[in-house]
Amino acid sequence: MHTVDLIDVASGIHAEGTVIDADTLRAAGRSGPLVSLDAWKIRMKRLRGGMSDGVDVIDVDNGHLSLSVLPTRGMGIWRGRCGSLPLQWESPVPLPVHPSFIDPSRRGGLGWLDGFNELICRCGLAWHGAPGTDIRRDDDGNIVSEQFLPLHGRIAGLAAHQVTARLSDDGSIALTGVVDECSVFDNRLRLTAEFVTWPGASRFTIRDRITNLGSRPAEIELLYHCNFGSPLLDAGSRFHAAIRQVAPRDARAAEGTDRWDTFEGPVSGYAEQVYFMEPVADSDGKGLACLTDPDQAAAVAVRFDTQTLPWMTLWKNTQAVADGYCCGVEPSTSLPNNRQFEREQGRVIELPPGASRDFEVSFEIAETRDAVQNLLTQVQELQGTSSCQVRDTPLPGWS
Amino acid sequence: MHTVDLIDVASGIHAEGTVIDADTLRAAGRSGPLVSLDAWKIRMKRLRGGMSDGVDVIDVDNGHLSLSVLPTRGMGIWRGRCGSLPLQWESPVPLPVHPSFIDPSRRGGLGWLDGFNELICRCGLAWHGAPGTDIRRDDDGNIVSEQFLPLHGRIAGLAAHQVTARLSDDGSIALTGVVDECSVFDNRLRLTAEFVTWPGASRFTIRDRITNLGSRPAEIELLYHCNFGSPLLDAGSRFHAAIRQVAPRDARAAEGTDRWDTFEGPVSGYAEQVYFMEPVADSDGKGLACLTDPDQAAAVAVRFDTQTLPWMTLWKNTQAVADGYCCGVEPSTSLPNNRQFEREQGRVIELPPGASRDFEVSFEIAETRDAVQNLLTQVQELQGTSSCQVRDTPLPGWS
Amino acid sequence: MHTVDLIDVASGIHAEGTVIDADTLRAAGRSGPLVSLDAWKIRMKRLRGGMSDGVDVIDVDNGHLSLSVLPTRGMGIWRGRCGSLPLQWESPVPLPVHPSFIDPSRRGGLGWLDGFNELICRCGLAWHGAPGTDIRRDDDGNIVSEQFLPLHGRIAGLAAHQVTARLSDDGSIALTGVVDECSVFDNRLRLTAEFVTWPGASRFTIRDRITNLGSRPAEIELLYHCNFGSPLLDAGSRFHAAIRQVAPRDARAAEGTDRWDTFEGPVSGYAEQVYFMEPVADSDGKGLACLTDPDQAAAVAVRFDTQTLPWMTLWKNTQAVADGYCCGVEPSTSLPNNRQFEREQGRVIELPPGASRDFEVSFEIAETRDAVQNLLTQVQELQGTSSCQVRDTPLPGWS
Repeated sequence: MHTVDLIDVASGIHAEGTVIDADTLRAAGRSGPLVSLDAWKIRMKRLRGGMSDGVDVIDVDNGHLSLSVLPTRGMGIWRGRCGSLPLQWESPVPLPVHPSFIDPSRRGGLGWLDGFNELICRCGLAWHGAPGTDIRRDDDGNIVSEQFLPLHGRIAGLAAHQVTARLSDDGSIALTGVVDECSVFDNRLRLTAEFVTWPGASRFTIRDRITNLGSRPAEIELLYHCNFGSPLLDAGSRFHAAIRQVAPRDARAAEGTDRWDTFEGPVSGYAEQVYFMEPVADSDGKGLACLTDPDQAAAVAVRFDTQTLPWMTLWKNTQAVADGYCCGVEPSTSLPNNRQFEREQGRVIELPPGASRDFEVSFEIAETRDAVQNLLTQVQELQGTSSCQVRDTPLPGWS
Repeated sequence: MHTVDLIDVASGIHAEGTVIDADTLRAAGRSGPLVSLDAWKIRMKRLRGGMSDGVDVIDVDNGHLSLSVLPTRGMGIWRGRCGSLPLQWESPVPLPVHPSFIDPSRRGGLGWLDGFNELICRCGLAWHGAPGTDIRRDDDGNIVSEQFLPLHGRIAGLAAHQVTARLSDDGSIALTGVVDECSVFDNRLRLTAEFVTWPGASRFTIRDRITNLGSRPAEIELLYHCNFGSPLLDAGSRFHAAIRQVAPRDARAAEGTDRWDTFEGPVSGYAEQVYFMEPVADSDGKGLACLTDPDQAAAVAVRFDTQTLPWMTLWKNTQAVADGYCCGVEPSTSLPNNRQFEREQGRVIELPPGASRDFEVSFEIAETRDAVQNLLTQVQELQGTSSCQVRDTPLPGWS
Repeated sequence: MHTVDLIDVASGIHAEGTVIDADTLRAAGRSGPLVSLDAWKIRMKRLRGGMSDGVDVIDVDNGHLSLSVLPTRGMGIWRGRCGSLPLQWESPVPLPVHPSFIDPSRRGGLGWLDGFNELICRCGLAWHGAPGTDIRRDDDGNIVSEQFLPLHGRIAGLAAHQVTARLSDDGSIALTGVVDECSVFDNRLRLTAEFVTWPGASRFTIRDRITNLGSRPAEIELLYHCNFGSPLLDAGSRFHAAIRQVAPRDARAAEGTDRWDTFEGPVSGYAEQVYFMEPVADSDGKGLACLTDPDQAAAVAVRFDTQTLPWMTLWKNTQAVADGYCCGVEPSTSLPNNRQFEREQGRVIELPPGASRDFEVSFEIAETRDAVQNLLTQVQELQGTSSCQVRDTPLPGWS
């Protein structure tokens, strides 16, 4: 194993300009598969100018799949490419935005959207979902606490204070970033975010751990906002997932339940439609969702550990391309409603002091018709004989 | 033509320390007037420390007139000098402030003022004017949207992601900066801000373009907050403009309508007086306003295209020097009232998808009595025989 | 005297990496005691990565006592060490946080806590204390102004634009930082913060000056939030101070008045207890408060000029170590209540235009039992025959 510290604030390490590749491993006297493969590379750079000023970008290229990780934005993944397939969407916000340019409480708590353009973005750790006030009451109905929670939590606007690249003897290429979401008289949560890929592979895995470093139980919520635009998304693209039931979030989504899993082309003024799902899991507890392009010639599959991510949200945001034509596939610990509602439904995790919770989401890109069919077969097999109930109206308890 | 990219986030360009002058043009094998003139220079630096940390400053010196452009603050112009005449005011905020130190919603929406010290500062793009809530209703009176709009909009707190210097064969020296004011589920507006001057000239021009990159119509408002302090402003300075009518904004301004266009010396505790005007335009659509010093030995003239900037505001802020003794000459698309009011008056521009609107404001510094007289003659000629109505009280529909 | 400019935004000075020590003085041709002593050093670095990105740290080591000053956070003192004794507390926020990551209005005005981890942190300059709305009324009861004031003011989130190191012929080592807390249509206050220590000494002094640079009277409030954790603070640690009276802030603090000056070990979920005091001063106007460790083998003494800092607050925050086990010893101009209340009690300073107010707080670390006893004797002598009234309940007019 070979590790390289890329960022470590406490040690004064900030390895801007660092390149790690087979050459640097050889120079370091390493052996193993990564030394004999030449096409992979890790490179860390810092953006300067604009609202991107000070954003660190770590490009990880496994020789076939490349992704840009953003330590400055909670270890989110800005965008990528798999072979010739772009993995991204065209957000109205074109470049990575430094959190210092974001005021989450702006626009009634929607300020988070001023920097939203990632392929994969975490929402959490203490809450996610629509902005709103979370009121807690005691058994007598007295207000215990009251806090306005802006959209999607703090984590995407917090920066990793420690990032390490790890080249393992098994040939895997990994980045680990540590992000603290903490304050005085508040939670003390730590996200240890791991990104792993393999030379030449069309897949990568996110393995996250949230640890409660405080002395008291802490509520946590986590959602992976995985966003795909063109060319994966286009008129005729479809969402495939093994699920027990799906329900529209609201009246707007209910308008489209008959075609909830198919996508239109870009429509200016299209109002987002959001569907909530309860996934089916395999014997290992893994759920599976796919987005196929119109020709079923390419697809992305999202596998997620339903033991910690038991919910799935589909965000249909097929607005005009100029406005951010996009589809979100979002495994999560709870549904993206206000935390107060989620708590009442028993979906908010209460993490004991010192305890950790692990999360895993894997992504696989299918680049041929066969590979797409193989994925769809897997979805069918996972669905098996269990029925999938498609509800016409919002489900009480879900929204 | 010779162009130099000074900032381009997407290309990894941030040319801190760059100097462009006749020598660098010669070294690049260029010819033309700028190569044979030695006194001009463009220099980009980055401020470090204090609340200025990370602010880029591009000093443009045409050999006689120098100005400091701030890409990090929406391409505003911090301050300048024309010959021996300082072009600036002494704001209580002494140095350029990085937007990350500004919270616009602070102090009831007046946080913008924490960084306000520019000679020329744009207010916009989606709104300008006093903080307040903009409520839109449908025809039945139902609330369609409700948003708190802090003072003067976002643009002065957004940073240009692309800046280019352009040295033209006609001898002009220009900077172009691109600033995006955008979000998801919101406007996607682009400001392309151009600053042009000429070797040895006592003048410069701002040519701006706002483009609606979104797929739906977008409301825009723009105001050029052009601020002059000592020595141009002093007891006995006067404002001269060809106008159809002028009205006080409020009761406070109405107290001073009989001397609305003359300035006092600094008065501690002076409460600002604001006057709104409808300018007269020449056959090219150009309006003209001047500020003369007490001796009429120096003046600054502001010419503006009334086709897109049909309104003029005079901000008399003759507080103590320590508190920011200053006068604002402010051509604009609409009056600096809450956007809801301006919309009701039909003054908010609705920019179609893909459409652009151009704005031009030129500045000319008169450095001799003759030059001042020449400007005043131009104002008189423009006013011509049309009457100028000075209202004693606020005009319904204007405030 | 030898001075070195470390930061000066206006002059383009930002001396990252600078080291000042006996060698550099010798190289500069200096003589005097600091040249002949080798163990002291000043070093300026900039943190990169995480939420610390862009924070400047100036380590001052007198050979025995070292402290890390943070120009980027209002010249606060992050943490230190005296001999083998750590001077710090373990905040849930582990590293210095750049102000651009802080939104003071977050969490109902508690956002300041997102960056709170200093040994010594100033609260002020225009207000300190709990978040709340300050309403001013005229004699007829009409509201003159209304402003929401988030926790503890702006100063800890403002950066020094000028910092100088000064090595004096008397052998003292000093840092001076200038921080402006100003805005347009608001106060224009300047903090000139001086930190002084002496080679090999176990003490340091803070000498601050607040100047009203505006033309009108300005209200100021200042509190030194001096925070001590383990090992000085542990079960059995005691607070010793010469005081006229002490009162609990509220019902929670009243629960513990019988043991108000003793400390428990860490208790998960411990709700803070706060005590307000009126100190006794010596003939020079100096007050004295000490925190002794459980064995009275080490202590820290805080001496403060009661002519400008007539109040003392003890913050007992003996939560779990993981949650920030800490004790605050806080000399101040006024009590840390909402400014409106403090104004009504006549405790808010109104600083005339151009006037300054000086503040001095000295810290002395006792490292032996004898030194601790000597401090306690000083407290007893200062208390002398004057009685110390310990109130069981909050004192009207104090909270």
